[in-house]
Formats: sequence, C-alpha cells, structure tokens
Amino acid sequence: MSRAVEAARETVARLHAELVRYQLVSWTAGNVSGRVEGENLFVIKPSGISYDELTPASIVVCDLDGELVDGDLSPSSDTAAHAYVYRAMPQVGGVVHTHSTYATAWAARNEPIPCVLTAMADEFGGEIPVGPFALIGNDDIGKGIVATLEGHRSPAVLMRNHGVFTIGPDPKAAVKAAVMCEDVARTVHVARAGGELVGIDPVAIDRLHERYRTAYGQR
Amino acid sequence: MSRAVEAARETVARLHAELVRYQLVSWTAGNVSGRVEGENLFVIKPSGISYDELTPASIVVCDLDGELVDGDLSPSSDTAAHAYVYRAMPQVGGVVHTHSTYATAWAARNEPIPCVLTAMADEFGGEIPVGPFALIGNDDIGKGIVATLEGHRSPAVLMRNHGVFTIGPDPKAAVKAAVMCEDVARTVHVARAGGELVGIDPVAIDRLHERYRTAYGQR
Amino acid sequence: MSRAVEAARETVARLHAELVRYQLVSWTAGNVSGRVEGENLFVIKPSGISYDELTPASIVVCDLDGELVDGDLSPSSDTAAHAYVYRAMPQVGGVVHTHSTYATAWAARNEPIPCVLTAMADEFGGEIPVGPFALIGNDDIGKGIVATLEGHRSPAVLMRNHGVFTIGPDPKAAVKAAVMCEDVARTVHVARAGGELVGIDPVAIDRLHERYRTAYGQR
Amino acid sequence: MSRAVEAARETVARLHAELVRYQLVSWTAGNVSGRVEGENLFVIKPSGISYDELTPASIVVCDLDGELVDGDLSPSSDTAAHAYVYRAMPQVGGVVHTHSTYATAWAARNEPIPCVLTAMADEFGGEIPVGPFALIGNDDIGKGIVATLEGHRSPAVLMRNHGVFTIGPDPKAAVKAAVMCEDVARTVHVARAGGELVGIDPVAIDRLHERYRTAYGQR
Repeated sequence: MSRAVEAARETVARLHAELVRYQLVSWTAGNVSGRVEGENLFVIKPSGISYDELTPASIVVCDLDGELVDGDLSPSSDTAAHAYVYRAMPQVGGVVHTHSTYATAWAARNEPIPCVLTAMADEFGGEIPVGPFALIGNDDIGKGIVATLEGHRSPAVLMRNHGVFTIGPDPKAAVKAAVMCEDVARTVHVARAGGELVGIDPVAIDRLHERYRTAYGQR
Repeated sequence: MSRAVEAARETVARLHAELVRYQLVSWTAGNVSGRVEGENLFVIKPSGISYDELTPASIVVCDLDGELVDGDLSPSSDTAAHAYVYRAMPQVGGVVHTHSTYATAWAARNEPIPCVLTAMADEFGGEIPVGPFALIGNDDIGKGIVATLEGHRSPAVLMRNHGVFTIGPDPKAAVKAAVMCEDVARTVHVARAGGELVGIDPVAIDRLHERYRTAYGQR
Repeated sequence: MSRAVEAARETVARLHAELVRYQLVSWTAGNVSGRVEGENLFVIKPSGISYDELTPASIVVCDLDGELVDGDLSPSSDTAAHAYVYRAMPQVGGVVHTHSTYATAWAARNEPIPCVLTAMADEFGGEIPVGPFALIGNDDIGKGIVATLEGHRSPAVLMRNHGVFTIGPDPKAAVKAAVMCEDVARTVHVARAGGELVGIDPVAIDRLHERYRTAYGQR
Repeated sequence: MSRAVEAARETVARLHAELVRYQLVSWTAGNVSGRVEGENLFVIKPSGISYDELTPASIVVCDLDGELVDGDLSPSSDTAAHAYVYRAMPQVGGVVHTHSTYATAWAARNEPIPCVLTAMADEFGGEIPVGPFALIGNDDIGKGIVATLEGHRSPAVLMRNHGVFTIGPDPKAAVKAAVMCEDVARTVHVARAGGELVGIDPVAIDRLHERYRTAYGQR
C-alpha cells in the first residue's frame, strides 16, 4: 500500500488510545477511521479486537463502499456507516463512534444536549442533536448521521438508543469531538440532575463558536 | 496437574486484571473461574487474596462439587455457586462474579435492566434479569443463577441484594459479559435518571442479537 | 526507635497507596495510623504531605495522648481523634480517616447507610452509622467515633458533615473497611437514586456477617 | 529570560499534571499560570497544546497586560482573564482555570455550592460563590472573577455557564483549590441528590477556617 495508507494506519491506531484514556469505550466497542489522503480509501479498526492489541498493521483499509481492500482482519461492524459518511461528506477526513456513557444516556431518551456551557458553544456551536433509530447492516445508520449533521454546526450526533458518531476534517479532530461530547454530556446531565439549567443567549453562542473556530490553539 | 489445568490457571489468573481495569471490583470481592478442558474440574480465584498477588500458581483447582483438588489456598467463598453452574450447564466454560456498582444497584432494587441500547440487544438479547435472594453456604445461589439464566438469552443475572454472575463458553466471554453488564447498567441508570427512556422494538432487538452473534468480530 | 516502630512505619506508609488507588482521597486529606505492637505508641501520616512523598521515614510516631515522640514532621491534624480511639478501644490496631465522596455525602445528610447488600452484611454486619458533628481541636471527634462504634458491629462511622473513620484489628483491616465503606456508600446511593430499595431480612444479615467473620479468606 | 522565569516555567509545566491526575480537564481545556517572582510577568500554558506535550520550554511568558513576552507558542485563550487577576490582586501568585465536571455543573445552574462539609469550611471558609456570565475576548471574565472573589474567603469562583477559576499565593495553592473545589462540588452534589442537606453552624465554619489556615500542614 501507499505511504499515505501507512500514515493513516499509524495515526488511527494511535488515536484509539485516546478513547481508552478518556474511558469512552468498554471492551472492543468503539472505533476510529481516517480518510487516506489523495485516494478513495479509508482505514478503520478491525472488528472485535481489543485496544491493547491494535497496531498500525492490524488497521484495515477499505474503499468508499466499505469493502475490504487491504488487511488480515475483518473491518469494524460499523464500517458501512463510516463509508457512507465519507461518500456523502467530502470535507470529512475522520469519523469516530463510541457508546460513551453520558452521551449514550441522552441518546436512550432521544433527547438533544442543550447548549448551556461555553465549552459546548465553542466546540459544537449549539446543542448536540439526536439522529434516528437505525439498524446496523445497511446504509441506514450512515444516512441518519449525514441527515442530522448536515443542518448543524455540531460535529457530533447522538444516534437514538445507540451511541455517538463524530466527524472532523481529520481523525484527531473527530476524536476530540468524541472526547468533548462525553465531557459536556456528563456535565449537563449532572447540572440538570441538581436543578434548573440557566441558558446562554444564542447571540453569545454564535460569538463564542466563531471566536473558537478562528482564535483557539496554534496557527 | 495436567497441561489443561495449567493453561486454565494461566488464563483465569490473567483475566482478573480485566475486573480491576474496568473497576468492577473493590479489594478482593469478585472472581473468575474456568472449566478445565476435557476434565471434570474447574479453576477459581482463592478466597480473600488481592488481585495484585494473583499468579497462575495461586489459582486453585476444584472438582465439580466445589471440593479442592489442587492448590495451596482455600478456594473463593463463591466456589459452590460456580460449581453448581458447571454441573447444571454443560455448555458453560467460564463464570464471573462481581459486585460492580451499577449492576448491583439494580439488584438492590430487584429490578431488571430494560433493553434500551443496541449494545444490550447485541450482547444480552434483551433485558438483564434478576435472580432470587439467596444465602451463601449451600446450592441456593447456584440454583438461582441457573433457574434465571435458563429461560434467557442474557449471559448475566443480577442476584437480588448481592451482585452479578455472568457465564460464557469460556472465561474470557464471561468476563466480557461482566464488563458489558456494568457498562449498560451504568448507561441505563444515567439515562433514566435524566427522564423517560425510549424503548427498542422487540423485533429490532431480535435482529440485532442475531446479527451480533453471527457477524461481529473475527471468524 | 524499636523494630516494631519501624515495621509499623513501613506498613502505614505503604497502605496510604490504597487510599489513592481507590480514589478515597484528594490532595493530602485522609490518613492511616497503626498501633505499635507492644508499646504505648502509634504511627500516623504527617500533616499536609502528599501521598507521593510518603516514605516510612516521613511517618511520625506519637504516644497515646497524640504527642509527637519521633519524626521530623508535624503529625496529621486528625491525630487527637486517632489517639482517643487507641486509648478507648484496646482491641483496635489501626484507624483510617477519609473524606471519600459517597460516604461523606451520606454524612452531609446525617443519614446512616441502610444494609441492602450482602457485602454490607458481610463487612459491616448491618447499617453504617452516623456519628455527631464535632469540631477538630480537642477530644470531641474521638469521643463521637467511640460512642458510635461501641454499640455497633460496623467498623466504619460517618461523622456528620465531615467524613469517615474506620477501625480494625490492624491498619490493613481499617483500610479495607474504608474501601468497602465507600464502595457500598456509592452502590446504595445509586440504587436509591433509581427507585425503592429492597431490604434484607435481619436474620439473614446476622447469618451473613457471622459466616464472613469465620469463613472468608485464608486461615 | 531570568532564573525566576525559568523556575516559574518549570513549576507551572509540572503542576498541569495534577489537573490530569484528578481528571479536572479533558483534551486541552484547563490551564495553570504563575506570577514570576520580582518581575511584572507571569507564565501560562500555551493554547490548544495537550498536557502530554507540555514542557517548561513550551510554557509562555506574558506581561501583566497579557501580551506575549517570550515563548514560541500562542498563550492560552484565557490569558486575558489571568492577566486581569494579577493586575487587580497583588497578593495572588497563581491562577487556575478548569471546566471540571461537578463544579461546572453548579455553574450551569448559576448556583453557589453550600458549605455543608468541614473540608469546605477549611479550604473555602464558606460557600463557593458564582460569578457573572462573561464572554471571552476582553476583560469581562477577569472583572467577574475579581469582583466575586474580593468579597469572599473562597479562593474559587464558579463562572456562570463556564467553569472554575481559582487563585492562591502561588500556583500550587491555586491548583490545590481547583482540586478541592471539584471534590466538594461532587460530594455536595451527590449528598443533595440523596435528600436534604444538614447545614453547619456559621460560627463553626469560622472556627474551622481559622484553624485550618493557621494549624494545618508543616510550618
């Protein structure tokens, strides 16, 4: 395979450690994928393999229909959903899926997470939306993700009764969105468990999101 | 002892580290056992020994009546329950017992965990049932486990006011069920604490469970 | 100092790592002490020293009035309470104090933890009681601990608006009681947050406690 | 740069590890700063850099207007708030900012944390107050912090819908306040989730705070 494929394998193998570090995953449920630069391919976690055993060589390569192109193992059972997102959203370079506890709890109530934290305004630009219930096995999950995220600034969607999918321009950004999604899902859950939430003015949310996109981090 | 015994000791000693990693156990409470291939024996954690000190040599060997056959230490105080399961369920090759927080909380209310997550449909095929209150010291716990699990697809049972027992074709599968049981017990607890749960259609649960059994992981 | 003092220092220094491992302590709040075998002395954590820096040499030695006898550092600000317990309860060889989250939450409501788990019956023989509000600086905390625990099988007391004190025949047993106290405080909190608790028959509690005292662990 | 600058860089780089250890931060959100002894400067975390990558050399130096004086990276996006505090409060030698879960949950309800724990009386001398909602980008956050903390014994303020700022005579004391703030925010949240809180007499709070300030730790 090309150098771009090997670089993507290395990046995606390494990023799974962040899912473990932030306790977003149990056992083998949860996966990161990344588009291969300049090729109609993406790389993704193999199915049912533990995070301790993931190496760049174990990461599998798929085409944009989700068909295995290179690798010794079967791809993640969520591969079709990742593939659909890469086909439908050319600006997306990385996709992450987890069943992280607090985000999935909102999904089990089919309830979006209201934007009551400046950190949510920064990263998500508003509430984190819920997507439809969809069975695994065809394009339904992918369609639900894309239909929900296309009208939103949020890089995260809570799929009903299922878990979280996040997108980003690259796999690291999608992992960051997954980490922050669980963080704000937990904080807002705890906040509302203690009483009535105080909202943020939508104009302030817009200003925070715009500033974060343009002024945060290193140039 | 035979090579199969030593292999089982090694596997079971190592798998206890997963109970620690996923914070399913405090101090010395919680144990894994495994049937010895081709012999009427199983291996199990010794009683009251810390997880740091567990070595393959410290794992004890019992016959299917739970009597000590080999080992320098007394077997787990839960040995009779494990033995009963091995006698009654020949398809079971591994048993795990924990007092993991969220699963035990459902058990303290004598309440099954409703199946509102696709990950529950996958692993448990429906709700996680509760078994009866039973005192330690005879076959009552074992009988309660078997009577509850025989009518169920779930590999996990919440024993009332006590904790979790899980089964599997081998010890690793039983450990996975214990990890996933706590994971979904926590997510569904958090979900319901925040408002009304949204259910999953029983037909969808059946389809998810069937697909997971046959298509997940490596062949 | 004698060999018994040095042995106690080594044991008590090492046991603080269990408070950290089980997340019972933040920063420097929480301490373990141990009676010195055959002498009217006990050893205890120095005040305000981080757990990373604790060595056997940093552990200080006090007489049973809580006066410093050996050591380069000031003793824990809870020394008077530990000393009172050693004076009043000759069977006690170890004392632990923490502000662990869930146990302290019950203490902030002045509410005992009801015995709804077999693991509580085992370790505590019933509910975990609350002791009075008492200010630091004299014998009031010690008196409150002793007055509460003398009528109880529980080795743990929740001091109102303050935190947990546990006792044991040796420091390791007191640490175990502190670990199990937080474990059951958390499980029962979560259980009750989800609905109505199911009780355990007092006769069953007695039988569980008696069996655990006599049959658990290694002889 | 001077030796005092390099010492401050080393201290501040190292203290970020405490934010990680106590799980006060996700990804790159949260920062420590420290005044440089004898100079009109402070050092602070660079923006958007992960805690794993922080070295003394990566810590940037700013003047008291928050302008970069030395360093290869852009300063934290919260630099203006830190700078305002150093200008307005000459006794402050360290500032910490986090979005720690439980403290931020109280901030999302615009609700102070009531003082129902002796550990709160010790460290905070009463309730932990809330400050106003303020947008990033000018001195509004700094002004809100200073206006709130000037009338209080608390070294911590919960900024509405945002997170926590803590101050101290040095960076380590500010980090301690951030750690203890999250600890008591969590304990009081859990306590109140379980029922009615029991208060502490204000006279007792005063006595506890005074004793802690003068008698805790090493002299």
